Amino acid sequence: MVVREDVPDPVPALGQILIDVQACGICGSDLHFARFGRTMLDLAKNLRGLPDLGTPVLDMGRDVFMGHEFSGEVLEVGPDTIGPPPGTLVTSIPLMVGAQGPQGMAYTNDLPAGYGERMLLSAPLVLEVPNGLDARRAALTEPMAVGVHAVNRAQITGKQGAIVIGSGPVGLAVIAALRLRGVEPVVAADFSSARRALASTMGAQRVVDPAQEDVFDAWAAEAPGRPVVVFEAVGVGGMIDEIFRSAPLGAQVVVVGVCMGSDAVTPFYAISKELDVHFALAYTPEEFASTLRDIAEGRLDVAPMITGEVGLDGVPAAFETLGHPDQHCKILVVP
Amino acid sequence: MVVREDVPDPVPALGQILIDVQACGICGSDLHFARFGRTMLDLAKNLRGLPDLGTPVLDMGRDVFMGHEFSGEVLEVGPDTIGPPPGTLVTSIPLMVGAQGPQGMAYTNDLPAGYGERMLLSAPLVLEVPNGLDARRAALTEPMAVGVHAVNRAQITGKQGAIVIGSGPVGLAVIAALRLRGVEPVVAADFSSARRALASTMGAQRVVDPAQEDVFDAWAAEAPGRPVVVFEAVGVGGMIDEIFRSAPLGAQVVVVGVCMGSDAVTPFYAISKELDVHFALAYTPEEFASTLRDIAEGRLDVAPMITGEVGLDGVPAAFETLGHPDQHCKILVVP
Repeated sequence: MVVREDVPDPVPALGQILIDVQACGICGSDLHFARFGRTMLDLAKNLRGLPDLGTPVLDMGRDVFMGHEFSGEVLEVGPDTIGPPPGTLVTSIPLMVGAQGPQGMAYTNDLPAGYGERMLLSAPLVLEVPNGLDARRAALTEPMAVGVHAVNRAQITGKQGAIVIGSGPVGLAVIAALRLRGVEPVVAADFSSARRALASTMGAQRVVDPAQEDVFDAWAAEAPGRPVVVFEAVGVGGMIDEIFRSAPLGAQVVVVGVCMGSDAVTPFYAISKELDVHFALAYTPEEFASTLRDIAEGRLDVAPMITGEVGLDGVPAAFETLGHPDQHCKILVVP
Repeated sequence: MVVREDVPDPVPALGQILIDVQACGICGSDLHFARFGRTMLDLAKNLRGLPDLGTPVLDMGRDVFMGHEFSGEVLEVGPDTIGPPPGTLVTSIPLMVGAQGPQGMAYTNDLPAGYGERMLLSAPLVLEVPNGLDARRAALTEPMAVGVHAVNRAQITGKQGAIVIGSGPVGLAVIAALRLRGVEPVVAADFSSARRALASTMGAQRVVDPAQEDVFDAWAAEAPGRPVVVFEAVGVGGMIDEIFRSAPLGAQVVVVGVCMGSDAVTPFYAISKELDVHFALAYTPEEFASTLRDIAEGRLDVAPMITGEVGLDGVPAAFETLGHPDQHCKILVVP
């Protein structure tokens, strides 16, 4: 387990705001990191083509702070810093802008993150939670923004419907974002009946148990001949190839599930059907802000996704629990 | 070898035109087919999501007609069929529209194709070769249209440059199409010095020998920070993953090389950089027609790509020769 428990209370410096964490969602990325952290770091080392931000190197031998889906009340604004008054409920993209450039606010050795009582935010990135939205739902801004961004990555013209493969938190966020955009029909697949029920609640017109029915057959029955965007929200090896093999001619594919390591695909399949594949990661600050507004103003209803709540000491058990998708979707840590 | 030699002269039926083949290019797909034909058919059998055109099944136990980059003179127009007068030089997309729907004009057991003296065309698809363009260059319409289409598959905004990996006929067609679109700079890579020279002739601003220099490093030096489209025109396993690993943040990737069978990729690389991957196959009839015009009117100079010419009996030897990229680019079969 990679959650720190005893650290000194952070003190806000210039440009920083200290918050009292009210809620923080447990993200699949955290589970991934707990399991594949070293693989992720090794892959990241091989990676070229990214700007060198001078980001501090993560030391897997030390404790690692996690928790990047948070909301909290302002406790203190740093010196000479503009920020909302103490008591204001806020959230932020999980990024700290510092002298060394931007730094991720989770998966670091040095920066207390959302699984804790107090954390620092970067003042220019802080967003006031509007419209009286409660802290728990505000904490879901981050995962919902992932869905909004994935949908924006597809170039949806209004004629397409969607297939969403995997109805975990990421798939559900995609489904909700598709509903927000008026995309119909949405056919969603998941082996878990609880998740299929949530997929319906969040906006899928049809749900499929892949053990019983092929999702592409279901799509063909639901919307014969309609152009489609296929969202891969499982992140397990073999899924991309199955989509290449089975997606309709000319389909768009958005890969938002993160399959670790190497994955075998058959380029001939994708070439034969001229697929477009968009790989999606995170969101823009604008998408994060609009997602918060959409939640606060009731256009994105995230309440059904919150299936559990634990205190800080319940985090390790919650990590265990989330391995069983029939029991939970999003568990919030409430310090 | 899969070229038929003795077949009765075909007779044009309603909607067909008989031509006297003047020139037919040998395509990498034919080499691929000679080598991987059974694999291609097996993969095609697995493929879902394509409309059922009732296309006759290819019998690999029988001889197979090939040759789909052709031009020829009209010999006879079928009964009650509108077509250009005998003697007119024409070309066509390699498709026969018949009672059973469209059928590819190469890789069939029944329809004589471009590696022969006479072949039938579908009258509505026949294009008169304009502007006095000679038969040899007209035969290059098809491979050049592949490059035009691949470039059209990328959404080039005018700010992007391009990396073209592989400078065989497909890569060169892409380079020529990029020049036609005014895309600059173009950095092209090939292990063959002859092909690098051709890449420069066709429009690459910089050519790279991957044995000496990494093409992404060369790109970074040539156009630091510029958005880029990366064309995969090699079709060998591992290339897509290397592009995923090394392409710059936010790059577009167009896969126009056809790697047969399974290929390992690392989705994490593509996700980390939010790559867009467009798989490209063939061209539209409009792209084919515009490519013919662009060649005929001198905007696309294909002459440098024609490096050899053989008679029908030279086809097997030419297939051999084309395995050595330093000797040849496009060999025309001139019956």
